[in-house]
Order: sequence, then C-alpha cells, then structure tokens
Amino acid sequence: MRRVIAALGFCASLASTCGQADEGMWTYDNFPSAKVRETYGVDIDQAWLDQVRQSTVRLSGCTASFVSPDGLILTNHHCVSSCLAENSSKESSLLEDGFLAAGREQELRCSTQVADVLVSMEDITSQVAAATQGLDDVAANDARKRTLTALEKACEESSGLKCQAVTLYDGGQYFLYGYKRYTDVRLAFAPEAGIAAFGGDPDNFQFPRWCLDMSLLRAYEDGAPAKVDHHLKVNFEGPQAGEFVLVSGHPGSTDRLLTVSQLESLRSVDLPPSLLRGSELRGRYIQFAKDSEANQRISADPLFGLENGLKVRRKLLDALLDEDLMQEKREREASLRGDAAALASLEGLGDPWQDIAEANQRYADMANEYGFLEGGAGFSSRLFRYARALVRGAAERSKPDGERLREFTDTALPRLRQQMAAPVPVYPELETLTLSFSLERMREWLGPDHPVVRELLATDSPDTLASSLVNGSRLGDSAERLRLWEGGQEAIDASDDPMIRLARSLDERSRALRKRYEDDVEAVVDNAEERIARARFELYGTEVYPDATFTLRLNFGTVQGWQEGERSIEPFTRLEGAYARATGQAPFQIPDRWIAARDQLDLSTPFNLSTNNDIVGGNSGSPLLNARGEVVGVMFDGNIHSISGAYWFDTEKNRSVAVHPAIWREALDKVYGANALLEELDAR
Amino acid sequence: MRRVIAALGFCASLASTCGQADEGMWTYDNFPSAKVRETYGVDIDQAWLDQVRQSTVRLSGCTASFVSPDGLILTNHHCVSSCLAENSSKESSLLEDGFLAAGREQELRCSTQVADVLVSMEDITSQVAAATQGLDDVAANDARKRTLTALEKACEESSGLKCQAVTLYDGGQYFLYGYKRYTDVRLAFAPEAGIAAFGGDPDNFQFPRWCLDMSLLRAYEDGAPAKVDHHLKVNFEGPQAGEFVLVSGHPGSTDRLLTVSQLESLRSVDLPPSLLRGSELRGRYIQFAKDSEANQRISADPLFGLENGLKVRRKLLDALLDEDLMQEKREREASLRGDAAALASLEGLGDPWQDIAEANQRYADMANEYGFLEGGAGFSSRLFRYARALVRGAAERSKPDGERLREFTDTALPRLRQQMAAPVPVYPELETLTLSFSLERMREWLGPDHPVVRELLATDSPDTLASSLVNGSRLGDSAERLRLWEGGQEAIDASDDPMIRLARSLDERSRALRKRYEDDVEAVVDNAEERIARARFELYGTEVYPDATFTLRLNFGTVQGWQEGERSIEPFTRLEGAYARATGQAPFQIPDRWIAARDQLDLSTPFNLSTNNDIVGGNSGSPLLNARGEVVGVMFDGNIHSISGAYWFDTEKNRSVAVHPAIWREALDKVYGANALLEELDAR
Repeated sequence: MRRVIAALGFCASLASTCGQADEGMWTYDNFPSAKVRETYGVDIDQAWLDQVRQSTVRLSGCTASFVSPDGLILTNHHCVSSCLAENSSKESSLLEDGFLAAGREQELRCSTQVADVLVSMEDITSQVAAATQGLDDVAANDARKRTLTALEKACEESSGLKCQAVTLYDGGQYFLYGYKRYTDVRLAFAPEAGIAAFGGDPDNFQFPRWCLDMSLLRAYEDGAPAKVDHHLKVNFEGPQAGEFVLVSGHPGSTDRLLTVSQLESLRSVDLPPSLLRGSELRGRYIQFAKDSEANQRISADPLFGLENGLKVRRKLLDALLDEDLMQEKREREASLRGDAAALASLEGLGDPWQDIAEANQRYADMANEYGFLEGGAGFSSRLFRYARALVRGAAERSKPDGERLREFTDTALPRLRQQMAAPVPVYPELETLTLSFSLERMREWLGPDHPVVRELLATDSPDTLASSLVNGSRLGDSAERLRLWEGGQEAIDASDDPMIRLARSLDERSRALRKRYEDDVEAVVDNAEERIARARFELYGTEVYPDATFTLRLNFGTVQGWQEGERSIEPFTRLEGAYARATGQAPFQIPDRWIAARDQLDLSTPFNLSTNNDIVGGNSGSPLLNARGEVVGVMFDGNIHSISGAYWFDTEKNRSVAVHPAIWREALDKVYGANALLEELDAR
Repeated sequence: MRRVIAALGFCASLASTCGQADEGMWTYDNFPSAKVRETYGVDIDQAWLDQVRQSTVRLSGCTASFVSPDGLILTNHHCVSSCLAENSSKESSLLEDGFLAAGREQELRCSTQVADVLVSMEDITSQVAAATQGLDDVAANDARKRTLTALEKACEESSGLKCQAVTLYDGGQYFLYGYKRYTDVRLAFAPEAGIAAFGGDPDNFQFPRWCLDMSLLRAYEDGAPAKVDHHLKVNFEGPQAGEFVLVSGHPGSTDRLLTVSQLESLRSVDLPPSLLRGSELRGRYIQFAKDSEANQRISADPLFGLENGLKVRRKLLDALLDEDLMQEKREREASLRGDAAALASLEGLGDPWQDIAEANQRYADMANEYGFLEGGAGFSSRLFRYARALVRGAAERSKPDGERLREFTDTALPRLRQQMAAPVPVYPELETLTLSFSLERMREWLGPDHPVVRELLATDSPDTLASSLVNGSRLGDSAERLRLWEGGQEAIDASDDPMIRLARSLDERSRALRKRYEDDVEAVVDNAEERIARARFELYGTEVYPDATFTLRLNFGTVQGWQEGERSIEPFTRLEGAYARATGQAPFQIPDRWIAARDQLDLSTPFNLSTNNDIVGGNSGSPLLNARGEVVGVMFDGNIHSISGAYWFDTEKNRSVAVHPAIWREALDKVYGANALLEELDAR
C-alpha cells in the first residue's frame, strides 16, 4: 500500500497534496505567514518572529529557550546529560540522582557548553558565487571554503558576534548567521534520569510516553546571571487537543533533497557498517556495565547516546529499504530532471545527478578506509580525539586563516580551546574499551594487511595496544592539554605522549585521504548540488523550505495523535500512566522521590503530548509555542514514524513529542521543592 | 561496471556465458559427465561416482570423508569444534590445546554427532504430486508434509536406513534419500585452534591463508571402529596449479532460484535485524571473555560460530544492496515470466511470482513477532531449547505420526533423544548472558506493551528473569532431560522446572504464530515455487542444477587464484608464510608446539590452496578430489567473494579454499607425532 507522503521539493508540482501537510522547517526570513493566516487564522507577524527568534537558544546539538529575564534556559534533560556526566564520578552520578541548585551561587558549570542566540542573517550567496565563478570543481571547493572563512572572520571583527556561514538548499543559498554567544552556561535543575527518560531505550521514539525530559540551565555573563532582553512566558495550562502550535528550534539534519544515488549510497555504503559497529559497541557497553555499579555509572551516558543513534539509523535504513518509497523518489527525480531539461533558462546545467552518482561510486571505493582513518570509526577514544585536535591544531594555526582546514579557522579556535580546557573526567576503562573495539574492527574491515593495521598491531593485540596508549597518555588532564595547545608546534614535536605520537604518525596518511575525499567527492557533489538547487529555484521558487542544517527554523502544526492500524493514539498522557507502567526495574523504575511524593501529586496532571510538527534531532529542547508565543511544552522526541522524516514527511503518522508544562510545575513544586525556580518561571 | 556472472537458471538461455563457468552443485544422478569429458578430457564414470558418493560423509552442518577402511573420517577442525567444546570445561579447553588420542581406545566420544553416508536415492515427485493434486495451498501443504512423513517412515521400515525426504529445485523434484547412519562418532585428532584457525575472524573468508583446519574422527559400530566398504585414498602431493579437481559434499543452502521479491524480503526483513542482534551479541561475548580466562574459554566456541555467521550475512546483505546485480535478477525474472507466459503447455500456471510477493508482504507483517516467539531470536538459551523440545515433544508424540510437526515424526525421534541424552556442559553464566540479551531485544523489538513482554517482565528485568530461569532449571543435567523425555506428557505436566513452565506458557501463542506462518506464507510460497519450477523445467529441462539443500552434490573446477584489482592472488600458500604473519598475539599467535618444532619443519610445505569450485557452507570438510578420485585437500572456506555465491556465481572472483594434504602430513609427523594415524592414512 502506498502511503500519503508530502515531501519537500515535491510540493510545488503537487500543490493539492502539499496544502494538507503542516510540513516544513522554515527559515525565519521565509516563514509562510500568509498560508498560516489562511489555514489557521493566526497572524504570525514580524514582531512575533523577532521575539521568538531572540528567545530561542542553540546549545551543542540541541535547542533551548530563555524563560526568564535572568537568563534561565529551558531545554531537555537529555540535552544536559553530558554536563551531568561531566560533573559525576565513578562514585556518584548526577544522571542517577538529578540536581537542584540550592541557590544561584550553587548552579553548576557545564564546562563544554555554549548558548547561542541568532541575531543577524545576511545573504552571501552572490559573494560565494562570485568567488567560485568559472573554476573547476576542486578549485571552486577551495575558493568556497576560503571565502566563507574570510566572511566569517570579517563579520566577527565588525560585529562582535559569533559568525557562522550557513548553507541552505544544498548550496542554493549561503547565509552568514551572527549569534550572541554565552560561553558560561550553568545547570540549575535536572531531574533523575529515571523519570526524565522513564522507559529508557525501549520507549525511546515511542508514544504514549511519560518522560520528564526537561532541565533548566542559566546563561552567565561576567560571572553573573545574564540579563536577557527577550524571553518566553510559560503557559502552564499547556495546549488543547487540535490547537495550533509552533516549534522554534534548530533541526539538525534532513536529507529530503538528496538525489536517488545519494540515498542509495546511504543505504548500502554508510548505514549498514555504522549500524553493525554501533550494535557491537552497545553489547560491549552493556556487558561492561554489568561488572560493577561504577561501570554502570560511567557507561550510562555514552550508552544512552549510542542507543538513541542506533534506533535512528535502524529506522533510516528501514526507510531506504522500502521499495515503494524509493520508487516514489525515483519518479520525482525523473520528473525534476525532465522539467529541468525542458527549461531554456537551464541550458548548460549539465547532468548534476549523474555527476553525483559517479562521485558516490568513488566514495564507495574509499569509504571504508576513510571512515577508519579520518572519520570516527577508527581510534574511538576521547584521548585520541584530543590528540588529533592538538596535532592538527598546531599545524593548522601556523598557516594563513584561509588555507586551514575549516575546523581550525580563527573563528573556530575559541571553542576548541574551551574544550581543551574543560576539566571533564576521562575514564581509562571506558577509553580502553572503545579504543580496543575500534582497533579490532579496523583490523577486520581494513584487513590485517593494511599498512596501518600491520604497523600498529605488529606485536600488539587491540587490547594491549589500547591499554598502553590510554594508560600512557596524560591528555586526560586539562592542564596538560592546555600546555600542548598553547605550546603549538614546538610542544607537539617535543611530546612523547603515546596518543600524540599516534596522531602524529597517522596524520599524513589520513590528511591525504581527506584531500582525496574533498577533491574527488565533496567538490563534485557540492558543485552538482548547487546546480540542482538552481534548477529547483527556477522551477519552484522558494515556496519550498531548505533541508535542516542545525540552523534556526520555525514550523507549525496542531496538537494531535494518530491512527496506528486499528488503534487511535490520543495526544496526551497523564501522570497516573507512569505509575501504572512502572515495573520496579530500570528503565521502568520510578525514582524514590516520586514514590515518596505520590500521594501529594495530582495523578491526572498531563505529562507528555504529541503534535504533527515537522521536527528532527537538534530540535530537542525546542519550545512548543501557542499562537501568542507562549511556551506550552518542550519538544523532546518524535514517534517511531518521525525518523523517516529525514527523507520525507509522512503526514499521517509522523508525530513529535513534548513534555507538558503542567508536569514541570507539579514536579518542581511537589517532588523537588524548587521554589525559587517556580517563582522565576512565574508558576505560582 | 557490470561483473561477469553466470547464475543458475540463466544458463539454458545463455549457453555461451555458462560454458565458461565451472559452476554448479550437481546431484549425483545428474552430474554433467559429458560436459566434463568434453571440456577437461576427464572421464567421471558411474564407478567413480559410486565410490566417491559412498566415501562421502555428512556430519551435523558439515561434510567429511572416509579415509581408511577402519572408519577414519577426515573433516575440518571447525566441524569438530562443538565436540571439542563439549569435552572441555572452564578449567581446560580442547579448542585451545588440541587433542590426539593416544590410541583408538582413547578416542573421544562426540556425543551429539552422527555420520551419514548416502546409499539410496528415490524420486518421489509423482507421489507428492498425487497427494496434493487439486488441493488449495493450505491443504496441499499439510498433505505434502503428511506424505513425506509416511514415505520416510515406510522407507526406514523396509530398508533399515535413515530416510529423509529431499526437496530439489524448490519443489520441482522430491526425493527420498536413504543414509547409512553411524551414531557413535569419536575424535581421533584435532590441532590447536591457534593453528587450525590461524588469523581467526580477521582472516576468515580471506585468502592467502594459513589454517590447519582439519581433524580426524572415527565412526564406530557396536563399540568398535566401523569397517567401511568405501574410503578415499589421500594423495599427499596435492594438486598442481590449473589441475582439474572436484568437490563432493553437502552444500548447505543457496538462494539462486529465489524470486526478486524473495531477495528483497531477505534484504529488508530478514538480514538487517539478524545482523544487528548478532553484532550486539558479539560485543557482549567479547566483553564477557575479557573478565577471566574461564570466560574466554567457555565463550570461544559460540563466539567463533557467531562471527562466522555475521561475516556471511554481512556480505549477503552487501550483495543484495548491489543495485547492478539486483537489476540483473529483475531482468532475468522478467525474461522467465515472459517465456512462461508464451508457452502453451504452461497455461494455467497463474502468477506464482505475484503470489510469492503477496505472501512475503504477509511475512513482513509477522516476521518480527514470529522471529522472537517461534524463531530463534527470543529465549536464546540452550536450556530453553531443551525445554521447548521436551514440551512439544511430549504433546506431539501423543498424536498420529502424520499429524505431528515435522521435527517430531517417528523418524526424527532417535536423533532428538540422542541430543537429550548427550552429557554436554551447560554454563549458567553464558546461558544468562544470551537469555538476558534476547529478552532485552524482545522487549525492544516487540515493545514493552506486547502481552508476552508485559507478562514476563511485569516485575523483572531481562537480567533478573534470565538469572532466575537459568539458575532454577535442572535441564542442564542430561539425566533430568531424559527423565522428562521418557516421562512424556505426564512428566511435563508435573514439572515445576522454570524453563519447562516458560515453554509451556508460551506454547499456545507460538504454535498459533507458526500455524499462521505455515498457512499464510509457507503454503503459498511452496505451491508457487513448485509452479515456477515446472515452468523452468518446461523451458530449460534439467540442464541446470538445483539450489543447495544440505544434500549430496558434486562439482568440478580447477586449482586457481584470481585477480583482485591490480593484485594477482596465487593459488598456494606455504608454511613459512604463517611464521611471517605471526604477531605473538591471538589470533595471529602460533601455538607453542609449532614454535618448538619450527626447525624440524619444511617451511616450503604447501599449506592452503584456492580453487574455483562452487561451494558454500555445509561443504566444510568436503574432500577435494583429483580426477582419479584421490583426496588432494579438505575444503574449509571460500574467499570473501564466495559469500554472494548464495545468490549468483561470480566466475571471476568466487574461490573456495582448502587445506593442502602435505601440511597435514608434516604436522601429524613432526608437530604431533601421530604415527598410528600416519600409518593408517598410508602417509609413510
């Protein structure tokens, strides 16, 4: 049976299907206010947009929002799990126990976190086009990067903002976004993981659901709570079923504009190996955690992230293995190619689809080696990542800004330095586990005769090598990292740290692979994508939205459940359901505080809710807003059908999931006694 | 680039391609002797076939051959790994240490092993056709099974042989095969796993290679070595490069005749979940093994089997994700369908391809639940498998033979009883590991709200439930198993063993699933496959060979390497290469005995060799034969390209791998001092 699918890029030619779908991750400069007014009778005007945009916050991989004038930030619990883990130890875990600062002075520094607010957006498409005009793919790729680096730097110097180049429509548009960046972010409140992620991995991407997946951070400036000009008001009543709602946030990445050959490449080249490795690592973590409570504690956060990613990738693969949907993609692509060929203004377009297919073939031939030596599949270890950043950072910083690898440009350096300086715990047992694992798989997939494998494992096993590298390295100490970072090339050359030596010895080979990838694959694909984007603009204009790129978007929809076969899924759950679902065993174990408070709690309090907003990972922590711009929820997940939203939006089944504000208030009040925060949230 | 592929079922219409390929797994009654004579000038006559057939032995999942008149059996080391594990303990492992019986009296019973020799083959296609004539799919499926059960039983009663019904050409032919069965099989010699599987998983399915993957068993009758009428002579010189060679054995399973929708179903429904689960279990085993030497010892055999299966399935998925090859399959199928539609004699064939596609859709909808509750994905535990066989066995044995599940017919019972009685070690730690793992995945994939999951884990976690089931069960004791087996329904009803109770409580639901699968999927597919087979016979005759079904086959080819990109792979390796490859760390660690014997050994002794024979799993242990019917190797693997041989035979790259007889002689003589065996093998 064919499903009803409205998918980006298809709307212009199929307006009747598109009209029904509350689909789209719209940039703030191109929000379809007219359509919203027409369909829902709601007026989203410029003042509304400006207020919400400046109250929306970007965190590492997540979204959040200001909810008080004193810089209080609302986000998900799972968006602060790294901060919780960084402030934990083998002996005690804030993930397990939760955290409530006794007062603002006790708020806890999240040393690797920053908070960004988007304050300016400048279209630089023409500058980029001018810089690459007439160049071949490889030269254009270099020129494009050089130009973006220069524009970012000039922007930062003139504005004092954090400036980042943004690619929209797969190269159809380039923007320069300017953020106000807060580099001092502290934790005010997080519940126990037992209630924040009640149901754990089995319930992840499921609904109905009972997760208090929320937390409160605070932005600081000059050591004091930041005074922010814009913040959102929380409406603790939440929304009604069917109510018009919006989500402002930073969806991470979608692939709805990819060509068929790119989808096939994901299906056959990228996803299967990554799923196999991830599954094995999951097994290693789980078995490791059984050995002791300390092991359980220190592996909880990485295991959580891994399992989340596995479920996503598993459903992505399922989607791409669905022949009906792939057939639909093929037909749409054929239609776009046909329309493009018929348009005189697109003469000279060439065949970008074929160019991409050929580049993908070259990618397939190198993907394995690239993944292990330059990508993240080999040398899976935090210490090694430090070492590589130190070794490359020293070499790159000695070059002119425009000639560096993009992650080491002047505008990128402060964030790198912050990460080097962050005093996060590094557990040798875990480091050895992941490094040994990745070395063993590197030997399997590259083969024992690959020169790197042969040299590294000439007399070592993956276990013995990992152990000596981890235990011999001093990079777990932030002071040592900073010493090497500040010391530059001389300090790196002089270092006998085994991780530094390893990173040094690999660098020439892995840089060469990266160069080959950039020239033979990336350069060709980027150029071809720009041409496809041009065709799409000529044919469809900007009545479509760009793929997600972890940049700020706004979308709309309504509070609603869906039909799952015979079953109607209602859009709200209530607190009583959590107690009914509890088994006394993790991850279905209600934390002690909640057991103790049960009699005080209103069990009919709404807990989670579902809407048809079009969101993906990166939107985690986004405020769910009503027409007045009040917060009526915090997004934390999608249902299982939302995962294929990477490729197409299934209007019938794709649903997003939020924490209802009534349960925050109930919890902060009766479970945690967080009176000061309740006052600040105006929740009394 | 399209590869040159000759694949079964395509040959008749493409004789020019086929003529070049030494492809095919031929039944002994249909061996293409004329083609062999014409191409290679070698005469494989009936006497040759009879002698080799009666010297070829079938083991559990493997092949072997008689190599002395006293019942000495040559096979692979990995074909006796279960026997080695069953005779090991936490404290010492025959897998690690190897085994050489001091004399025949010290040969070691392999208590779950049998050895079968094929002595009769009767075509029963017409009886099956008569029994199913005019019935609908479901009734025909039942009648087919009933008929096969009755024919097997009658055969055993009249012949005294072990009789098994065999399906060829996916239902195009049915045969009744009669085997002489030896139920007392003992181990005479096995080398250390360190040399038998030198290179371990990284080198598995690779070539060049250095594995002494051979062992010697002996068949016994009435407590004494069996006197066999037929055995093969070993030619310790081995073959020359380019020499014509044959392989006699039992290839397990190929899917070359599957329809496109069946291949797509494997690709999207079966392989991905099985790979994900297998990869995670691999991680759990590996981490478990790091905890202690005992853990390492008891997990080595299951890990070996798992990793082998993972590599196979990974490459099967890769093959099915190859769009060029799938396109080829689509075109071939379209051509067969077109030819069939045009042939008057095939009027009334219907559309079996569409029938299969629809059955596959029904399968996709139930595969997850079926896999966990009735297939092997859930309740992964040896103790549970005993319990299910005991519970079902009691119920089934109370029914008439023809109405039972096929695995419990009268002819199947002796083997089941043997397995119940076999005193194999059961390790609670491993049982708990696998059972907890499978319960956790069942909860993930069926969801916490599936009634079975909800009931089993109402107050338990996968860990606590697995632990109480395993530690509470007495089914690890063979005496207790036999008591329950012999006690029948009454003993089962009275048992309070937790595994028995679990199997009882699941049985109604899982039987219902099985019935639904048999009626809605299997019955339809079997009928449709019979019709496709009929079309193929009408169009192509039996100039093609049937898919492998773990029944006896003979194939031919030559000793040769292949071209891997720029690299020419030579067909022989030599002993010196093993020492050069050693790192001192498992799995590249040469066993101590071999280090000590190094100076005595002829380092130029041929070790492994590659040929282009068309084999798959199940052929492990098969004798490699020269034109005179002498053993010139024992097959133990294929190269990495051989795995896609499940779907098509790649003449350019598919190669099989054997252990050269010269290395056996060198090892038995100078490393192990196995003088009596050398005499018996006539190796002096």
